[in-house]
This record gives sequence, structure tokens and C-alpha cells, in this order.
Amino acid sequence: MNYKMMGRFIGKILMVEGVFMIPALLISLWEREFGAAKAFLWSIAVIFAVSLVLVALCRGTKNKFYAKDGLACVGISWIVMSLLGCLPFYISGAIPGFVDAFFEIVSGFTTTGASILPAVEGLPKGILYWRSFSHWLGGMGVLVFLLAISSVGGSDNGFTMHLLRAESPGPNVGKLVPKMKKTAEILYILYVVLTILNVVFLLAGHMSLFEAVCTAFGTAGTGGFGVKNDSIAGYSHYIQNVCTVFMILFGVNFSCYYMLLIKQFKNVFRDEELRLYLGVMAGSILLITLNLKGYYATLGETVRHAAFQVSSIMTTTGFATVDFDFWPGFSKAILLSLMVIGASAGSTGGGFKCGRLLLVLKSLQRSVHQVVHPQKVQAVRVNGTPVDEKILKNTNAYLAAYVIIIGVSFLLISVDGFSITTNFSAVLACFNNIGPGFEMVGPACNFAAYSTFSKLVLIMDMLAGRLEIFPILILFSRTTWRHR
Amino acid sequence: MNYKMMGRFIGKILMVEGVFMIPALLISLWEREFGAAKAFLWSIAVIFAVSLVLVALCRGTKNKFYAKDGLACVGISWIVMSLLGCLPFYISGAIPGFVDAFFEIVSGFTTTGASILPAVEGLPKGILYWRSFSHWLGGMGVLVFLLAISSVGGSDNGFTMHLLRAESPGPNVGKLVPKMKKTAEILYILYVVLTILNVVFLLAGHMSLFEAVCTAFGTAGTGGFGVKNDSIAGYSHYIQNVCTVFMILFGVNFSCYYMLLIKQFKNVFRDEELRLYLGVMAGSILLITLNLKGYYATLGETVRHAAFQVSSIMTTTGFATVDFDFWPGFSKAILLSLMVIGASAGSTGGGFKCGRLLLVLKSLQRSVHQVVHPQKVQAVRVNGTPVDEKILKNTNAYLAAYVIIIGVSFLLISVDGFSITTNFSAVLACFNNIGPGFEMVGPACNFAAYSTFSKLVLIMDMLAGRLEIFPILILFSRTTWRHR
Repeated sequence: MNYKMMGRFIGKILMVEGVFMIPALLISLWEREFGAAKAFLWSIAVIFAVSLVLVALCRGTKNKFYAKDGLACVGISWIVMSLLGCLPFYISGAIPGFVDAFFEIVSGFTTTGASILPAVEGLPKGILYWRSFSHWLGGMGVLVFLLAISSVGGSDNGFTMHLLRAESPGPNVGKLVPKMKKTAEILYILYVVLTILNVVFLLAGHMSLFEAVCTAFGTAGTGGFGVKNDSIAGYSHYIQNVCTVFMILFGVNFSCYYMLLIKQFKNVFRDEELRLYLGVMAGSILLITLNLKGYYATLGETVRHAAFQVSSIMTTTGFATVDFDFWPGFSKAILLSLMVIGASAGSTGGGFKCGRLLLVLKSLQRSVHQVVHPQKVQAVRVNGTPVDEKILKNTNAYLAAYVIIIGVSFLLISVDGFSITTNFSAVLACFNNIGPGFEMVGPACNFAAYSTFSKLVLIMDMLAGRLEIFPILILFSRTTWRHR
Repeated sequence: MNYKMMGRFIGKILMVEGVFMIPALLISLWEREFGAAKAFLWSIAVIFAVSLVLVALCRGTKNKFYAKDGLACVGISWIVMSLLGCLPFYISGAIPGFVDAFFEIVSGFTTTGASILPAVEGLPKGILYWRSFSHWLGGMGVLVFLLAISSVGGSDNGFTMHLLRAESPGPNVGKLVPKMKKTAEILYILYVVLTILNVVFLLAGHMSLFEAVCTAFGTAGTGGFGVKNDSIAGYSHYIQNVCTVFMILFGVNFSCYYMLLIKQFKNVFRDEELRLYLGVMAGSILLITLNLKGYYATLGETVRHAAFQVSSIMTTTGFATVDFDFWPGFSKAILLSLMVIGASAGSTGGGFKCGRLLLVLKSLQRSVHQVVHPQKVQAVRVNGTPVDEKILKNTNAYLAAYVIIIGVSFLLISVDGFSITTNFSAVLACFNNIGPGFEMVGPACNFAAYSTFSKLVLIMDMLAGRLEIFPILILFSRTTWRHR
């Protein structure tokens, strides 16, 4: 392992985190929340101190940086970032237990939105801001951000490449442009512009600036932390619909937006993942609307709630306008399936991802065809291009890891003795970075009842889900730590 | 498609089915159940008639028989065999609805043991015998039986090979001996001997001959239909323990028994699948025993119930001595996981199978290693031998199909509006050929409440589970039916 390069890199990441905490400090001062301000001041000091020590200790190495270093680096830096990022919650007393505070910030950075807080409205605004901002930072990735603003690895060597690959979501993260740094820049510019647009539309609905910014953070990162106890339920229909539209937009593969910018409209229109994503979404909204007949006064209201909840769950955001735990069985089954499918690859959303589902379905179809015509050699094609067999193999390995992690986590947290549906949906909600599940972890409830052990399991699930499993999985493998 | 060869083959299978129905007819006559006797007489007549017509119509063809013909042939023959095999239930009025009768016999042949009957004790003995015997016939496979007693395909050409492959459970059905016919013979001899041993041990516990035979059928096929309303709960501790031991024995890969016969003790002892199977079982019994503290009067009773239920679920039999739906959450979570894992490949049990789980775990481990050491080329090894990459690929395709079928079936039967746990465990219980699930389909309940549509979905699940998915899956593929 290239520990020095990793150490230096983590130091730089903490620097970014510390800088990004300053707005929260200022908000606390402005709102005269001096307890919270003190907590932020201490946290920033600790973060900078750790950062400087790391950078100073890990100077100068020219050793090669391998793929495993990239993966481990991403996994470890997210854990360190969370351990220090939860300090404001803990020091301010907003969340008295350290594991709870850790859970909350991991839930933030991983854009899960699962909370251990029963109510948020009494919390200091600085704390609420930091909680929502963690979604925004985690959504596109703090390492990607670092790559976009600096040239950490010097020239475009394996370093930046391995890091971007490890942190970006999706089975086949392409470079949009040949240079990785440029790709990271483009992604962040698109992200910022869309977020600002979201804020503007929310302001147009007479939301306060603070709430609009926090809500946009939660939407852009597909996180789901809100600033109201009832999530989005108390806002106007207009606001709810704005959220629906922007959740859907942030669940789209960002390369589609890039293609729109460079006027490759045809490619966007023909993109099979986009079609699958929008198709599943439209189908689910339709079926749930039909299934909800009689639940709400008008058809319009039914469609609004169905569209909101479907896009919230499928993009793995986790906002709610109603308590869907009271919906009929079929609607709940659809939502449970959407939890697994998730958003598009290359979006800020989580889950198994539409792009991967497409690959799994197409290779299964090929398997059936190969039984029927064993002589024919067929390639799996997406958007007309044959997919590399290695990507198919990796996708299958991903599916195996995905299923096994869900199974093992479910078993582990079952020790607490809650119901099958509660535990199963809790694992799905955390691992797929959604937030709410069903029953005891439904939209009107929270994760506080779980034991410390179960919370740690769910924390690992959230991290594994956000980082696409392998950066966390290899931390548990002996070969990673063995000296050669 | 080689329709003529398929037709002739299905005709022969029906002949076997008709002959095997005669004992049920005789039992009905002996017990003076004339209604049931008449039903069996009619059923046998219809079955023989269809059989003769098929054999007569499909004479003479020398066309080649491909793998897809083998798969389709197995899928179709199981459906036809079930459509005619349920006639006694329907004609006798024991089960008034045809779809219900169809469900019950598919549940029998596939060794699922899921029932739509609220009570069985009032049923005619002939009917009960046929119901239990369907487990025994389906357990090792009716086609395998046919191969064992006759030389259907003439010499050992692709025909017998494709059929045996398609009907036998497990990822890598080896020939025990070079000739397929001989392999089929050995399997059936082992099966018959173990079944007889089971009957003898049950008789030693003062069970009546009829009950002993029926219970042994249910155990040998890992089916789970019983002749008492409370399954095995009312029998003595001795009987319950005999069932536990034999359930475990029938969940072992039969090639282990063959190796014992030819004195390859070392190979049996070192077999990784056997170790995984017994290890998971022992671990589950231990954990459940600890978790059940305080539920039963003595430790002995707790261990007895834990061992019985664990082996019943893991071997996918489905007998019960207690209503485990009232057990604590952790125990239920373990049982749910065992439902998925299932028994050994090459046994009469169902589920994903320990052998496949071993392959999935090992290839996942390899994926992690390959990230760490990308240059190293590693083979996945089981029992010291490298596994063919094609088998690994097929196993991954199987996993994908497995997950997708569970997801789609869950969605489809959710239309009936029951709870998530009910629907999810109903699909698992049918697809993995277990029988009971949780809540509304728990051990004390049955599947009668589901709609006809859902029952048809679950019937397909049972067939797909028993036949290892592909023989049923290709029936739904357009390419299978397209003329070239």
C-alpha cells in the first residue's frame, strides 16, 4: 500500500471538509447560536490540525499508485471524513451519542438520509445547514471535487483515474473528455448549475432562502434530509412538484446533460439506460396511481403523491409527502422494488442502478439465447455498442456482492429482534442510500431504536452502497493489508 | 424443435405416471373409498389414453436432439404431468377447484409442500398417498427414473445427457459413472434404499405403515406434505428426531453416498460443499437455540425444535413441529436466509444450493483479489480442482435469473394486497420448494387465500425452482419457438 500518498490525499480532503464547514459556522454566528458556533469552531480546528499533520508527515514519495490503493484510499478517506464531520453534531450536543452522530453524518455524506433524530425543527440552523450540505458534498463526491479544483496527482497518471473510478457511481464510468481533471470539472459545473436552478425554482414558490438551499442540497445529492419534521408534506403543491421534477433530473446520468450541451441530442434520446429509468418511473407512477384509487380526494392529488414518492424512492432521495407505509400492499411492493433498482449510473442517486440492471437483463437474455443456439457467438450491446466482457463479469460480481451484503446485513441487524420487513427494508434503505424503509423505519419513523452494533452495520452498508461496494469490501480483505 | 421426439418422450413419462397411480387406486379400494377409487380409475384411463395417442402420433424421427429440446422437453413434460396428475384431487372432489388441485400437485412434484388445504386428516387415504408419493417421484425426478429403467434414447447419445442435465439439481451435475443410464440407476438405488431405511426407523417408533411410508416420501423428496394437520408436531420425540436425521441425509449431495460406497472416504470428508452444508446447519441450530432461550421448558426441547426446523427449512422440506412464525426476529431471519441457501446440489432438496453459494463466494473472493493483484491470474478451486470458467459464468447467470424471478414474482403476487413479509416469504417458499413461509403463509396457515392469478405465478415459481430455472425460462423466450 502506498500509505504516504494516501495520507497526503486524506489530508487534502480534510482541508476541503474544513473549508466547507466555515459557512455553517457563519450561519451559526449570524443566527446567534453560540453553542453550535463553538462546536463548529472546535471541529474546524480539529479537522485542520489532523489535515496539517497528515500532509506534513506524508511528504515526498514517488511510488506507484495502484488500483487497490485508489479503492482503499477512497474507502478510508470517507470513513475519516465522517468521523471528523460528525464532530459538530456531537460537540454541540445536537446528537448526544457519538455513534448516533457518526450514523447521521455517514447518512448525510452517502446521501442516504436515514436519520436517528425524531425531530429536526428545534435544531440550530448551522447544524441543519451542515447536515443538508453533507448530502451535496457526498452526492457528486468530495474526491471528484478535489480533482476538479486542483491537480492532486500531478499529471494525469493512474492516480486521479483510480480515484475517480472508485468514487464515481456506475458500472462503466466513462471519461466525458480525455482528461480526468476536465471530466471532474464538467461534472461539478453541471451539478452547481442544476442546484442553483433548483434553488431558484424553490424561491419562486416563496420558500425562505435557508430552506430552499437546504432542500436543494437534499435534492441534488439525492439525500433526503429535510429541515421540517414532516419532510416535504407541509409545503405547497408547487414546491412538491418542483421537488419531484428535480429529483428526477438528479437521477439522470450526468453524461446525458453533457451530451445535450455538446448537442448530441440523438444520443440522449436513444440512450437505453435513460429510457429504462424514465420508463420504470412512468410505469410505477401509473400503477401506484391506479392502486391508490380511493385513498385521496382527487385524481390530481393521487398522481402528485404517487409521482413524488416514486421519484423520491427510485432516485434514492427519501423525501416524503405522505406516509407511504399506509399504502396498499401492491404500491409498497413497487416501492420496495424501486429501492433496489435505484437511479441511473453516473447520477448522484444510489441503488443497484438502471445501467447495471440493463446489463444484467441483457446478459441473462444472452444466456437463454445461447442455450437455444449454442453455436452463435453474441455480444451484449448497449446503445448499439458491444459491451466489454470484463464489464459484464464485473457487473455479475457486483450483483453477487450486492446480494450477499444484503443477506449478511439483514442477518446481523436481526439480532435486535425487530420484524422481517423492518430489518429488510432498513438494510435496503441504507445500502441503497435511500433513507426511509417500512414499518419501524418508515417515513414517519427513524433509526434510533437500533442497537449500536446494528447502527455500525448500517453505517458500513451506507458507505458500501455509496462507494459501490469494492472500496469498502477490500478493507475487509486480508490480502489488501499483507506486505509483499 | 424436435417435436416428435418430445411427444414420444412425454407419452412415456405419462405411462410411468399412470402406472405409479395404480397403488393409490388399490389403497382406495382396500380402504373402501369408492369415490376416490373412481377418481383414480378415470385419471389412469385419461393418462394412458393421452400417453398412447402421443406415442402413436410421434413415431419415427431420426432428427438430432439439441440442448434446447432437452430443456423444453423437461419443462413441458413436468407441466403436462402435473395437469394430468392433479385429476384425482379434482375428480374426487377432495379439492374442488382445478387451479387449486393443479397447485397442490405441482407443489407435490416439485417437492415444495405448499398446500391450499386447511386440513388433511379427513381426506381419503388413497388421495393422501398420491399426494405424498408425488414428492417421492418428483424428488429424484421422473425423467431420471425413466432413464434408469429403460433406454429411451437408444444408445447414450445427446438425448439422455441433455435430459438428465436439465432435470437434475445442481450447477455441475457430474456423471457418477461414464454411462448416463448407469448414473440414473445408481441414483435411484441409493434413493430407494435410503427411503426404505427411513420407513424402517419410523416403524420402529410405532408409526403405522401407511403414515410411515407417506412421511418417508415427504422426507425423501424433501417435500413436506404430511398426513396430519399439525405436520410432525403430534408425533413422539423419537419420530421427530428420526425425521430430523433423514431430512439432513436427503439434503446431502448423493454423489457423497456413491463415494462412500466405492470407499473414497477421504473425498467425502474433504468435500467443501458438504462442509459448508453441515457447517451452516450446525451454526444455525446453535444460534437459534441460544436465541430461543426461555421459549421452551428444557434445553433438550429447545435443541430438538431448533434442529428440526433448521433441517426442515434448509433441506427445503417444510415439515414443522412448532409454529416458528412465533419465534423471535433473529431466529426468523436465520430461517429466511436458510430458505434462500437451500440444500446441497445433487440432493433432492431445493433452494439456491450450497454448491452454488460456494462458487459465488469463491468467485467474489477472486474478484476482490484481482483488484488487489491485477496481474495474478487465479482459478477458482473447489475441492482442489480448478472450476471451469463456463460453470462460473453459468452460476452468475443463474444468480441473476434467481434474483430477477424472485423480484418479479413478488411484484406480481403483491397485487393481492397482502403484507410484504407474507408475499416475500411466499415467493421464497415456493421458488425454493420449501412450503411454509411466514405470517399468512406460515407453518400453521396455507396458500388458499391467494387469487388464481397469484397461484399461477407461484406454480411457475415452484416449477422454475425445481427444474433450476432454465427449462421453464426458455419456454417464455421467443427464440425457442421460432422456426429457422
